[in-house]
Amino acid sequence: MPNVTLSLGKNSYDVHVSNGSLDSVGFFAARARLGKRAALITDAHVYPQYGESVRRSLEAADVEVSVHVITAGEEQKSLSQVEKLVSEMVAAGHNRSSFVVALGGGVVGDLAGFVASVFYRGIPYVQLPTSVLAQVDSSIGGKTAVNIPAGKNLIGAFHQPRFVLADPISLLTLSPRDLREGMAEMVKHAAIRKPKMLVTLRHIAKEVPLGFSLRTIESLPEVIAENIEIKARIVEEDEHETSGVRAFLNFGHTLGHGIEASLPYGQLRHGEAVSLGMRAALFLSRKHLGLQAQEEREVLETLAALQQPLVLPEEVDPADVMEHTAADKKFDHGKIRFVLLRALGDPVLSTEITREDLQEAIAHLTTPVSLN
Amino acid sequence: MPNVTLSLGKNSYDVHVSNGSLDSVGFFAARARLGKRAALITDAHVYPQYGESVRRSLEAADVEVSVHVITAGEEQKSLSQVEKLVSEMVAAGHNRSSFVVALGGGVVGDLAGFVASVFYRGIPYVQLPTSVLAQVDSSIGGKTAVNIPAGKNLIGAFHQPRFVLADPISLLTLSPRDLREGMAEMVKHAAIRKPKMLVTLRHIAKEVPLGFSLRTIESLPEVIAENIEIKARIVEEDEHETSGVRAFLNFGHTLGHGIEASLPYGQLRHGEAVSLGMRAALFLSRKHLGLQAQEEREVLETLAALQQPLVLPEEVDPADVMEHTAADKKFDHGKIRFVLLRALGDPVLSTEITREDLQEAIAHLTTPVSLN
Repeated sequence: MPNVTLSLGKNSYDVHVSNGSLDSVGFFAARARLGKRAALITDAHVYPQYGESVRRSLEAADVEVSVHVITAGEEQKSLSQVEKLVSEMVAAGHNRSSFVVALGGGVVGDLAGFVASVFYRGIPYVQLPTSVLAQVDSSIGGKTAVNIPAGKNLIGAFHQPRFVLADPISLLTLSPRDLREGMAEMVKHAAIRKPKMLVTLRHIAKEVPLGFSLRTIESLPEVIAENIEIKARIVEEDEHETSGVRAFLNFGHTLGHGIEASLPYGQLRHGEAVSLGMRAALFLSRKHLGLQAQEEREVLETLAALQQPLVLPEEVDPADVMEHTAADKKFDHGKIRFVLLRALGDPVLSTEITREDLQEAIAHLTTPVSLN
Repeated sequence: MPNVTLSLGKNSYDVHVSNGSLDSVGFFAARARLGKRAALITDAHVYPQYGESVRRSLEAADVEVSVHVITAGEEQKSLSQVEKLVSEMVAAGHNRSSFVVALGGGVVGDLAGFVASVFYRGIPYVQLPTSVLAQVDSSIGGKTAVNIPAGKNLIGAFHQPRFVLADPISLLTLSPRDLREGMAEMVKHAAIRKPKMLVTLRHIAKEVPLGFSLRTIESLPEVIAENIEIKARIVEEDEHETSGVRAFLNFGHTLGHGIEASLPYGQLRHGEAVSLGMRAALFLSRKHLGLQAQEEREVLETLAALQQPLVLPEEVDPADVMEHTAADKKFDHGKIRFVLLRALGDPVLSTEITREDLQEAIAHLTTPVSLN
């Protein structure tokens, strides 16, 4: 099975990627000596699908399990949900020798990881990501957080999991829209580190409407692992986001977040907003660093094949996007840090992007894309 | 000036103890390269005394300071206060390159330290402890936490400060009761690691009613540093409380917490409850490990000199203490982990204490102490 190791000193861990791996969580927990008591945190969408088999696998490995099912949705990433989960865990008899199992997408992973980081000042946890975004991105690298009204992910911790089990089979039950928006993060990985992956992604994109072929299903662990590998190497270089290398992962995210914040929550999926953000970032990369038009086009073609939006929805006011983006980022002498590409696979953390650049890039998103 | 170093790998830091050191915080912050923006978190008791001079010292070192004053009291150690402080810090323009200055007693230190540990997933902070307990105990070792209804300190983090500045002059404005209860934690340090310090503590205790002599004031930094040294060596051995060594610091605390929880909040000070807890622990040490009566008596005499309670207040129901203690601790086959002394300076983490032992020890606390 593809296995990616994150070498982070005493925080090192393995990511196991294989079809059907969710059923083996008990085996991996025993091998990692995680103790005999687990709090399984999941959401109401995922629990009916995989909750009981995960529980059974843990129990078969002699682990006592309490199950905590939250409502699905980003609003659950809150301090009140943290307090509720910690209280439930105390009532269920957990203590500092327990561990947390996070089963679900990015919201569950961020929330359950943060609960694990603060419960009795930190207990171990494992990630069982079930969405594309969670498997290739959010479950890897130890970022945990909750939102507060003042901003998203403002309260959090770096807390690395003890292992991650990514089971691509869990992606097969996702809706086409969820599958595609998750793959937008794979496009990001390809753009910053491995352009030739774009060919594979376009190939997979073609199969989404009819369902994956057996051959594609068999290849998913390799594709997922390839993406995890990209993120893992970056996290190893910059575990706590201090050197700037980890910032490369924000490619497409600066304006993506501004666009997300300009719409009622959930109208655009995260990956869809990031797709728009990537188009804007490619535009600025061409303008400032001479990124070749052919390279820009290849990324846009892949996003188009994934039916990601590349033109700003009409109801979005460009001035709103600007305002939300500016609120999020710190301008230093009128300039912000912004990830650009010199070429595909060659990202740069620019400090030269001005307010006017951002405005121009947002305006660019109101123009049609021609890919012929 | 006495200087205690905690050697904790990349989390190492110094504790500076000297009379008047609060005025030098700007110098130390600059030396530690903590950046140019600080959030000063303090409470409404401490702010009028030291808030402005701390702010001026930081500003003189070219640090921009926002001031956040909370109501004094344990109830402020809450998640809602964390959210409020983080929101205020965002509104004041802080980001991941800011740092936190915790100025006050144990509540401010625990709360502000936790805020620093979660703000943008962790920013640096420094401790400026102004109570006895905070100077010799809670500011040292990186334990931060808030309370939730399900229990005290259930949500927290290990987050080491970048430095600690303990200024014994700030103790001179404490009420005699606050001074004495804080010194109960010094008695604990003496009992587990340095019995000869008990003589010094009895000497200082005698001066409390009339105010300290100049000679005593001049000796305070040494006495405080001696206590910090004890805690520092223990934290170095067991930073994350995994080996059991750090548990020695809980001497007197298991039943102390049970007693605290059996009374309306604030009726007994923490150190007062711990004094009762130490008497109970000494009783069990004599019973189980043959601690000599003379050694038990020396600790009790020191606590008596500090006017600490040694007999359970009449309104406390021993059954209540038992219940609160048992709710706090995990019984394993009917036994709990409990710190005993084989001799003064020689603690043992016993796993042999039963429910009946605890009941007997609580009953012992209802009997008078004879020290003649």
